[in-house]
Amino acid sequence: MSFNLATMLHESVLADPDKPCVIIGDRTLTYAQVEHMSGLVAGNLLGLGLDPGSKVAVQLPNIPQFLFAYFGAMRAGLVMVPLNPLLTAHEVAYQLENSDAQVLITFESFAAEAHRGAQTVAGVSTYVVDGGAGQPPEGTKRFEDLCAPVDVPDIVPTSADDTAVLLYTSGTTGKPKGAELTHFQLFMNCTVGGELFGFEEGDVGIAVLPLFHVFGLSSVLNATVRSGTTMVLVPRFEVDAVLDAIERARATIFCGVPTMYVALLHADTTGRDLSSLRVGISGGAAIPGEIIRAFEEKFPGVVILEGYGLSETASTTTFNLSADQRKVLSIGKPVWGVEVRIVDAADRPLPPGADNVGEIVVRGHNVMKAYYKNPEATAEAMRGGWFHTGDLAYADDDGYLFVVDRKKDLIIRGGYNVYPREVEEVLYEHPAVAEVAVIGKPDERLGEEVVAVISLKLGAHATQEELTAFCKERLAAYKYPREFRLVEELPKGPTGKILKKELRG
Amino acid sequence: MSFNLATMLHESVLADPDKPCVIIGDRTLTYAQVEHMSGLVAGNLLGLGLDPGSKVAVQLPNIPQFLFAYFGAMRAGLVMVPLNPLLTAHEVAYQLENSDAQVLITFESFAAEAHRGAQTVAGVSTYVVDGGAGQPPEGTKRFEDLCAPVDVPDIVPTSADDTAVLLYTSGTTGKPKGAELTHFQLFMNCTVGGELFGFEEGDVGIAVLPLFHVFGLSSVLNATVRSGTTMVLVPRFEVDAVLDAIERARATIFCGVPTMYVALLHADTTGRDLSSLRVGISGGAAIPGEIIRAFEEKFPGVVILEGYGLSETASTTTFNLSADQRKVLSIGKPVWGVEVRIVDAADRPLPPGADNVGEIVVRGHNVMKAYYKNPEATAEAMRGGWFHTGDLAYADDDGYLFVVDRKKDLIIRGGYNVYPREVEEVLYEHPAVAEVAVIGKPDERLGEEVVAVISLKLGAHATQEELTAFCKERLAAYKYPREFRLVEELPKGPTGKILKKELRG
Repeated sequence: MSFNLATMLHESVLADPDKPCVIIGDRTLTYAQVEHMSGLVAGNLLGLGLDPGSKVAVQLPNIPQFLFAYFGAMRAGLVMVPLNPLLTAHEVAYQLENSDAQVLITFESFAAEAHRGAQTVAGVSTYVVDGGAGQPPEGTKRFEDLCAPVDVPDIVPTSADDTAVLLYTSGTTGKPKGAELTHFQLFMNCTVGGELFGFEEGDVGIAVLPLFHVFGLSSVLNATVRSGTTMVLVPRFEVDAVLDAIERARATIFCGVPTMYVALLHADTTGRDLSSLRVGISGGAAIPGEIIRAFEEKFPGVVILEGYGLSETASTTTFNLSADQRKVLSIGKPVWGVEVRIVDAADRPLPPGADNVGEIVVRGHNVMKAYYKNPEATAEAMRGGWFHTGDLAYADDDGYLFVVDRKKDLIIRGGYNVYPREVEEVLYEHPAVAEVAVIGKPDERLGEEVVAVISLKLGAHATQEELTAFCKERLAAYKYPREFRLVEELPKGPTGKILKKELRG
Repeated sequence: MSFNLATMLHESVLADPDKPCVIIGDRTLTYAQVEHMSGLVAGNLLGLGLDPGSKVAVQLPNIPQFLFAYFGAMRAGLVMVPLNPLLTAHEVAYQLENSDAQVLITFESFAAEAHRGAQTVAGVSTYVVDGGAGQPPEGTKRFEDLCAPVDVPDIVPTSADDTAVLLYTSGTTGKPKGAELTHFQLFMNCTVGGELFGFEEGDVGIAVLPLFHVFGLSSVLNATVRSGTTMVLVPRFEVDAVLDAIERARATIFCGVPTMYVALLHADTTGRDLSSLRVGISGGAAIPGEIIRAFEEKFPGVVILEGYGLSETASTTTFNLSADQRKVLSIGKPVWGVEVRIVDAADRPLPPGADNVGEIVVRGHNVMKAYYKNPEATAEAMRGGWFHTGDLAYADDDGYLFVVDRKKDLIIRGGYNVYPREVEEVLYEHPAVAEVAVIGKPDERLGEEVVAVISLKLGAHATQEELTAFCKERLAAYKYPREFRLVEELPKGPTGKILKKELRG
């Protein structure tokens, strides 16, 4: 009954040791090379005297060392705690302390901030990956020390239900909580997801979603290794870097969030051969139908398939199976072995129909074990045995799910529910609009008022009056925005997802 | 992280509710029908007040009620304890008592014997499946009571590592022990196995291996349901019944033990259209190379693929992937996610080579959780974290494994190891021999002497002298049998495997 995620890497080595696993710039690492390096990291981590289940925090961009650290920790029977590179020292300290991490592996350019946090936590050793730019902070060690020659240990036989990854998420409310994702859960997710994406032997994926995020970890990194295919690491989302990567590696699969599709859609691709691309997987936020339509027109042969998931569901929960079976604007249907219900505030299941909007709750192999050391938050999120996502949706008669919005993003204007996403969909149809986020602002009379924050396409213009008229024509009176704020750029999180919280201020 | 084997049935219902799941005689049950019946059983079992993890013993032949009881128990979050129909009352009582079973579901023709055993164990209720032949024993209930109209409960969300099946096996020594097989383990086994068998949508399998045995349970029942294909239930192995089933259902897959292949090989198939058959999966015992060759000659288009496994490894451990990749006489290579080693008496790994015969030890998702309530036997079998199979084998340079024999079947004659299987392989090449088992008998001078017990083909003749000459020509002096016993039929266990223990007396 033992199972360890490092088995996925090992089986792909057995199948073809010389197959490229990761490409970064001009460098290619084979499956055998990645396993060898992760074996060294495993041996050196165990050499530090870490017990099974000890926590290793990994704060790295999409570089090969992420794989060495991740599969090294797995092989050694340890738990990886992925950290966002943008965390402040204070936040790093909180997550290290809360997770009981004993090792922090970080990158040169974040090392000063991260180590400042790590120093305030007892018993954490910091290892820094050299970025070539300067000296690592005093008191830190070099990541190379964890790659020193050592006997490579066997894969430690963890149990299927053992925690593999402790992933911090703010959830719907409160302080970040560590979602305990198990070996079984992550294995099932990339297996089920991989089957849906229809991986073929020659597939090459673009790994630009951060691997420390559940979407990148499961749908890109794990799915690639499970299927024995190849991924191109792109450490930072820049349109030209992504287009170069697609062109040079003849990439076939792109996983991204809607803002990435928007950026690629507006990019100049003249003279490029991007014909290798066959599928775009979208998640992380709702992708506007208009973006799908325009993207597929610009990139013929590509089909965009939208899925849905969260950190706690590791991640894929629902998916649009194929171009034939998808419904644009829908997040699709639950994947194999996953049950989804739409429930009302009293957790009673709601029938299908656009009028029956409720919270998405999930049960199955993809749901986390618990929030680490937080039984109250676990019990609250898992009440009745179902994980409560905080997302609002309805189902149609065919069982396709349509997210209307995040529960916390819902605007209640004069007693009426306004789903920001519906208003955003309308504004994306406006020719001048590049990106938009609709939020509520406090209003004495109505409780909340509807505000649209917009960035315009390069060189485009639109007035408040034009935008108001455009919306009034398409939306009920209680829904259309009374205020339009034009901004240069919308604030985004590490995956590129728009941060409404920051807009609300 | 919840996972329940009943999910496999449910997903196949979602995929195609009207697809035939089982065929028995003229009767076909769809996936939806099987799930409905198992849902009723689940509801009625829970109605008895059974707690999660309670044990339900199931002693049934290959009839649809086996599926209702099995998936009913799974759906209700209970544990199935499959019992061999041939058990005596005393043996039934032991397994019921040892497993803490609260319910026994048995079949009319075994019910008297089984209920005699069940009555001696406190708190067991016996339910009898009507076979149409007479009155069930007094004090028993009807299985129909467990199928009474009731609200079908949701699938109980068990954990991946929870025990699903408690399977009694004698192991290498001693009293029967209950191997705890988990939901994850059984799911992985039929998934990995099913991928290897290459199930296609239209596949129809013959379910003649007993479903209460791990080979039938995993490679036939679970693999069929997981892949959403169809199986024909054949409650008893009779050559004509099997041939009829293949012909009528246009069956494509046959799973069996070597003695079944021998019987089919010697059957009269004149005038039958058996061309639908494409693959034969063999396990349970070593299949002689001569049988494979002759079988594939008689049934053109069929390839026989041999695998290896035990109750404790649930079951598939190694497999010959395909006709291209197989090595006849080899049990193949470890399946995905399973590690196998050949070790010496001190558990040190042995290098490849036919001279390096050692015990097969196994680690991975397919290994049981424990022997139920038997930590000593568990610790002994799992020493060093590897399950010790008691089978002797060597590996070749390509990693293919060759079983030389059961550790307990090894004959030591005058200090030399004689592997019965090697001698049996030779005798199977003799034109008059139908079946053979080579055993040791105590010998004052040599410790053990080699004896061959043989059944001849219908109408064939062979003298002791002819057989001796045949063996002497092909085997070293210390190996060839000094005694030949001709018998009508060799004693066999429920799967059709030859019982050497009974021959040794």
